[in-house]
Amino acid sequence: MNLQLEGRVVFFATNNINKFNEARKVLGEYGIAAGMLRVKNLEVQSDSLEEIARASVADAFERCHLPIIVEDAGLFIEALSGFPGPYAAYVYKTIGNDGLLKLMRDIENRKARFQSVITYLSAKTESPICFGGEVAGEIVEEERRKGRESGFGFDPIFKPVNSARTFAEMDTAEKNKCSHRARALRKFAEWYGKLP
Amino acid sequence: MNLQLEGRVVFFATNNINKFNEARKVLGEYGIAAGMLRVKNLEVQSDSLEEIARASVADAFERCHLPIIVEDAGLFIEALSGFPGPYAAYVYKTIGNDGLLKLMRDIENRKARFQSVITYLSAKTESPICFGGEVAGEIVEEERRKGRESGFGFDPIFKPVNSARTFAEMDTAEKNKCSHRARALRKFAEWYGKLP
Repeated sequence: MNLQLEGRVVFFATNNINKFNEARKVLGEYGIAAGMLRVKNLEVQSDSLEEIARASVADAFERCHLPIIVEDAGLFIEALSGFPGPYAAYVYKTIGNDGLLKLMRDIENRKARFQSVITYLSAKTESPICFGGEVAGEIVEEERRKGRESGFGFDPIFKPVNSARTFAEMDTAEKNKCSHRARALRKFAEWYGKLP
Repeated sequence: MNLQLEGRVVFFATNNINKFNEARKVLGEYGIAAGMLRVKNLEVQSDSLEEIARASVADAFERCHLPIIVEDAGLFIEALSGFPGPYAAYVYKTIGNDGLLKLMRDIENRKARFQSVITYLSAKTESPICFGGEVAGEIVEEERRKGRESGFGFDPIFKPVNSARTFAEMDTAEKNKCSHRARALRKFAEWYGKLP
């Protein structure tokens, strides 16, 4: 633990403990220690995850002056013209998985993709640097979880291609092998590890 | 026309010609001439219309230095925990009225309300000033318009209380008697008319 803390450290500005736990494990594989920073992120309203993440990390850095990452993620359902897109959090809070499943009732094209943008900013970087990750999959017919408590957000209704299980039926290690978030984090971690 | 332009003038920053036309007529009743200003508004992601409108007007003023108003509006459906709320524009663009009607299928509680926040900023005002308007109503069972082209956004599925018609079955004059936007604009116009 001490060894890790003497190595590289980055702070993940998020209020979502599930996202943080996933990130902590991925970054740990690269010898990067992660701290969770609970700050109210500024989120601009935009259809572009990158634009949202850039504005958000700049705002968070402004307030803490630590090497910081933020994530913005979205779920894009093809048959719904990309809905809920970058507004996943709000849509989850209001209509939730039940609402999405109702919207998808009787729709044959179940294709969807999760996208994640990780944005990094520190005193050494002039402007935010973005790393993207994506996973294609489909919306299943009903919620599927491993345990009653497993999975968060839209995980119970999203099944990646080439998988028989939804994100909520996987443990963190398995999800981290294919998730949009883990893919973006790995790109960040590889770049971060090479910094002088 | 010249007379009007010699009187009070305000610029409405919007890309929605329908909103502008409604506003122009309401403001005209108060002797206020309105100009339409097409700028890409910054929109922060927030559940608060007022917060969105404040950030948005400050950004627009920054770029044009004219006396300016912006509007942020939302549709809040009780049975959907307030969805689509402030994200009305994005939700309209993706799932549209069909999506909302599908979400409301088999739901008895059809109560909804439209809210509008008009925010004003000029060189003479220290910070943005907000004026709110609201109208209660319900989501009808299917789209209802007067003509094929009439109404915009969620107008065809929203019927104010004490009205037999949806917003899209009304002409602008009738809609302006009861709409959330007109109510907010009237508050603004009364205040604006009294400015020295």
